[in-house]
Amino acid sequence: MLKVGIVGGTGYTGVELLRLLASHPQAEVAMITSRGEEGVAVADLYPNLRGHYDLCYTVPDVEQLSSCDVVFFATPHNVAMQMVPDLLSAGTRVVDLSADFRIRDAAVWSEWYHETHACPDLLAEAVYGLPETNAEAIKSAKLVACPGCYPTAIELGFLPLLEQKMVDPKQLIASAASGVSGAGRQAKVDNLLAELDGSFKAYAVNGHRHLPEIEQELAIAAGDHVGLTFTPHLLPQVRGIHATLFSQLTDPAVGLDELHFAFEQRFALAPFVDVMPLGSMPQTRSVRGSNVCRIALHRPQNRSTIVVLSVIDNLVRGASGQAIQCMNLMFGQPETAGLDGIALMP
Amino acid sequence: MLKVGIVGGTGYTGVELLRLLASHPQAEVAMITSRGEEGVAVADLYPNLRGHYDLCYTVPDVEQLSSCDVVFFATPHNVAMQMVPDLLSAGTRVVDLSADFRIRDAAVWSEWYHETHACPDLLAEAVYGLPETNAEAIKSAKLVACPGCYPTAIELGFLPLLEQKMVDPKQLIASAASGVSGAGRQAKVDNLLAELDGSFKAYAVNGHRHLPEIEQELAIAAGDHVGLTFTPHLLPQVRGIHATLFSQLTDPAVGLDELHFAFEQRFALAPFVDVMPLGSMPQTRSVRGSNVCRIALHRPQNRSTIVVLSVIDNLVRGASGQAIQCMNLMFGQPETAGLDGIALMP
Amino acid sequence: MLKVGIVGGTGYTGVELLRLLASHPQAEVAMITSRGEEGVAVADLYPNLRGHYDLCYTVPDVEQLSSCDVVFFATPHNVAMQMVPDLLSAGTRVVDLSADFRIRDAAVWSEWYHETHACPDLLAEAVYGLPETNAEAIKSAKLVACPGCYPTAIELGFLPLLEQKMVDPKQLIASAASGVSGAGRQAKVDNLLAELDGSFKAYAVNGHRHLPEIEQELAIAAGDHVGLTFTPHLLPQVRGIHATLFSQLTDPAVGLDELHFAFEQRFALAPFVDVMPLGSMPQTRSVRGSNVCRIALHRPQNRSTIVVLSVIDNLVRGASGQAIQCMNLMFGQPETAGLDGIALMP
Amino acid sequence: MLKVGIVGGTGYTGVELLRLLASHPQAEVAMITSRGEEGVAVADLYPNLRGHYDLCYTVPDVEQLSSCDVVFFATPHNVAMQMVPDLLSAGTRVVDLSADFRIRDAAVWSEWYHETHACPDLLAEAVYGLPETNAEAIKSAKLVACPGCYPTAIELGFLPLLEQKMVDPKQLIASAASGVSGAGRQAKVDNLLAELDGSFKAYAVNGHRHLPEIEQELAIAAGDHVGLTFTPHLLPQVRGIHATLFSQLTDPAVGLDELHFAFEQRFALAPFVDVMPLGSMPQTRSVRGSNVCRIALHRPQNRSTIVVLSVIDNLVRGASGQAIQCMNLMFGQPETAGLDGIALMP
Repeated sequence: MLKVGIVGGTGYTGVELLRLLASHPQAEVAMITSRGEEGVAVADLYPNLRGHYDLCYTVPDVEQLSSCDVVFFATPHNVAMQMVPDLLSAGTRVVDLSADFRIRDAAVWSEWYHETHACPDLLAEAVYGLPETNAEAIKSAKLVACPGCYPTAIELGFLPLLEQKMVDPKQLIASAASGVSGAGRQAKVDNLLAELDGSFKAYAVNGHRHLPEIEQELAIAAGDHVGLTFTPHLLPQVRGIHATLFSQLTDPAVGLDELHFAFEQRFALAPFVDVMPLGSMPQTRSVRGSNVCRIALHRPQNRSTIVVLSVIDNLVRGASGQAIQCMNLMFGQPETAGLDGIALMP
Repeated sequence: MLKVGIVGGTGYTGVELLRLLASHPQAEVAMITSRGEEGVAVADLYPNLRGHYDLCYTVPDVEQLSSCDVVFFATPHNVAMQMVPDLLSAGTRVVDLSADFRIRDAAVWSEWYHETHACPDLLAEAVYGLPETNAEAIKSAKLVACPGCYPTAIELGFLPLLEQKMVDPKQLIASAASGVSGAGRQAKVDNLLAELDGSFKAYAVNGHRHLPEIEQELAIAAGDHVGLTFTPHLLPQVRGIHATLFSQLTDPAVGLDELHFAFEQRFALAPFVDVMPLGSMPQTRSVRGSNVCRIALHRPQNRSTIVVLSVIDNLVRGASGQAIQCMNLMFGQPETAGLDGIALMP
Repeated sequence: MLKVGIVGGTGYTGVELLRLLASHPQAEVAMITSRGEEGVAVADLYPNLRGHYDLCYTVPDVEQLSSCDVVFFATPHNVAMQMVPDLLSAGTRVVDLSADFRIRDAAVWSEWYHETHACPDLLAEAVYGLPETNAEAIKSAKLVACPGCYPTAIELGFLPLLEQKMVDPKQLIASAASGVSGAGRQAKVDNLLAELDGSFKAYAVNGHRHLPEIEQELAIAAGDHVGLTFTPHLLPQVRGIHATLFSQLTDPAVGLDELHFAFEQRFALAPFVDVMPLGSMPQTRSVRGSNVCRIALHRPQNRSTIVVLSVIDNLVRGASGQAIQCMNLMFGQPETAGLDGIALMP
Repeated sequence: MLKVGIVGGTGYTGVELLRLLASHPQAEVAMITSRGEEGVAVADLYPNLRGHYDLCYTVPDVEQLSSCDVVFFATPHNVAMQMVPDLLSAGTRVVDLSADFRIRDAAVWSEWYHETHACPDLLAEAVYGLPETNAEAIKSAKLVACPGCYPTAIELGFLPLLEQKMVDPKQLIASAASGVSGAGRQAKVDNLLAELDGSFKAYAVNGHRHLPEIEQELAIAAGDHVGLTFTPHLLPQVRGIHATLFSQLTDPAVGLDELHFAFEQRFALAPFVDVMPLGSMPQTRSVRGSNVCRIALHRPQNRSTIVVLSVIDNLVRGASGQAIQCMNLMFGQPETAGLDGIALMP
């Protein structure tokens, strides 16, 4: 039985780790931390957990956490980097759901997160936790940096096209929309139901923090520099990311069937990527609560612009589910352990 | 392995049976029927099932269905009653999620459903499928009539008070609200998102079909005639029933602690009833996707009106989950098999 | 042209005053205050006002405000009471949308609002601003205390029954539900879309601050003590209050037609109360953005429990619209001036 | 007083015409038709109209309609074209909200609407009812073809860029999202709240009927062929269109200020286009119920891709409001008559 610790357990990715791990046959949550809610039972904060967990929040303590086999960081950025070096020294492996170790270049990280990185030496060691590209490295990783929610949906949707050099890497556009749980459980006027319900808007159009991460990973896939215009939007709903991806065929003679086949081949062995039949238009509810990413391809009017649609649940595949998928790989568990729940639909 | 058949598989309770049974360790769906969607893969209609089911809808056929150990009817009323006699004769046990066998008195049934009952002889044999009152009878039942969604939430909330004669059975009021999935997957203008979103209304104030069923069961609990005013409302959300129950203490000297203790005692062994601590106010999302009914008690201003709050997921505890709970009892399975999923929150 | 001042202009009732007054033929907003947003243009905070207002928020100043004919307080409690005495002395009339002057008894006020009342002497002078009961007094009032949102919906629904002594004033039940804009524009985790969307709950079951106000006004209508159980709920929508009111007929021989006629008579001259035809079930969207209260009556199963359904827009009839209606009466304007907008439906 | 007739009055654009025209100082609705609801009061179908209209639906009759000064068609396609020739012959002017006269080329129309056009001769005479491009022609038009909802939002957002040849007309991308009221009031399973709430999806990715209309109008603006990839999405909300428009600068040396100035100049005299300050991200709720189109410009990372955000209320500026704006121009009324309502926010 894997002994699991969770740092930052009051936010939505923390409670989602608890929900998913409750059904994991080989993992057990031994401790969960929160400075603000010390001593409070997790089931008092999240009544869906009543009857499933007796745990109370404790103050994060590296010594205690290092008794775990693996520690998840479900924290804002700049928390994990303060504790990870000590945990790794103690032999505890880490899965970080925050942004601290996703970007290879400490200078780029500082530019977007407005902090100095606390342990830039670890950036080279950290493995980017997208199982569809890095499964082997994840298996032996001590420190996994889980992708952000937008990056997961967007990278999976562009990967086959870029790897096969089927589209121009310089002209990528991602128009994506997220449920508001992606903004976390902070008290902000902007995220009140009274501000958001029945309305839709773009945000961070001039530069979302996920942009450098996405461009970094797409460049690896393309083997070339990429140029991405990324426009995020906020949906009046709780969960779900929908990415609508536009790219330009390098060879207009390539048929849609061929593109579709490339996707099917690329993800043939991926248990959590569903390449849908031609003509499909995935809904975010089809992955609500599940770890699956569903992808569909279109070529409108048979012109040279390819439209890829990619949906995930931002809290599962975009965060806690993917983190558990990485943990499974790290500890020799079946990749799907604890993650076979079916999406709630309707 | 139990061999399961589902009649009426295109509606929301049908797909919810599939979702839940996919994680049941001892049951397997062998066939699922739909006249309208014959030959269509269930995963084409409900993409959340992609990768989990290869089944296609077939036309309902009693002979084929009778090869199953148990058949669920996830149909409108007046379907099950046409097929159940033959299935029972063939030795197949039946769990009916529709209204056909819930009401003991065929005349009352006809009054509310405007049809003649096709097999009134079976009404005495049918067991009302509320495990908290009828577990023993369900175990040996050939035919179980699963309670409606409103009845489940309302009956569980009133039961201890009536059984202990703590409140006046003649002055019961239930103000309840349901998510719109309770209205099913029929094409109706009234249930369009454009008609319902951002709005709230009462409906069927002068007589909802669940009224006679609720009064029948509450009368059994009270050992007396009951008088219930039942006002249903429609919520701008997909899932969830919230019942706000008002009743008058027979003895105002009885304290709230005493009432609360009565609830805890009554449901001490019920795996799917959560009597919450005093002061609680359950949210429907705390049971979204789960089979739990959460109940809280209040006595405002220490007056003689008791307020009970009761929430369920109408598609799980109010339909498909409760049906599986009954199946588990009927076939000697653990009562919670396939039903231990945690509610999706947020 | 009436010169209008608004204190507390950043909240939802403040912006709603601006929206409604923009179409008022005889009133003009001269100043609007906010300590936190001093110097900010109202149209920067609320872009729906772009092109309609050039006003910027100023710091509240009694001397400047006293140059207005009327000042609206769209503030939390305990703000108006600090400034109203000086404004009245300066001859400026006041319409208070907050709770400061609604309750006649300063001791009761203190019990529910946990403050000492700053000017209890004014409580006798303040006129409760429900035009359907107090129109004459409002006309000459210097200080109008506008009813709360729940009180407006509930009082209008019970008034005719209590005034005509048709129901037992000791056994009143109000199960009401509100859109979340009623909770204001404060940054609170509980009111995030991620916490509320797709969910429903009761709150403040043991005592909502509107209870003493409602009981006070219903007692005046009944000419007797009243006993009300009031259970508020929170809807996953922005606007609207729906009150479901239960009461017991004193004389079961009275017919529903007679009750309905009493309502029609009572509100025959009220421009903003719509007594709907028998059988109606009003939706909150039917009053979205409008000052109308729609009411319908039911007598389920012809028993002795009467069910009244009453809907308003909490920000219009429950706050800013009703405040303008009072202003119209105070200054000899047509009661409907600025308030004839039709509800947005769908 | 203009005498107005409305054909097709039960749908959402019909009731929106009624809502808006109720506040028009110089227009009066004389008749409104519906085959299905003949004899029914409009206020029975849409209770928000109670107290504002006594009209009942009548069967459409050209002779009666020709007594009107202007007739609006708020119908599906293929209705107006059957009646317009006779109305024009009778001297009645027509504003068609449907698709019948938007496309110049009858062959293109047939290709997308799968019908033969009933009066192709009128296509040349019909004026495309976008006041910002065609105000003069609209003033003298007998027959105005109002733009679709997506076309209005998208064309206004691209116009200045294309007219000034600032972007490449061959590489236009529009990722747009609509509230579900755009799908009308038809009973369809796909548009049930239970199917859409809490979810988001693209639809008609391979070819939405609005595509040829948009390309036709953008080509006029560009004075050149255009290539547009148009991806519509469905929002879990009632009203609002949000268009996110991507285009490529022809001269990367042009600054964002210059582009912004071009927009301000282009719409300086347009009462219903709001070019927002640089940095803005318009929300659909900022135009809910209003006739305004709000537009904002961005140039992420100072690269060559320009992002324009454009929001309208699909039922007002995307349909009924724009139709009234055209009527105002046709009959010498102030362009804003009946259209000065402020958006409902929150």
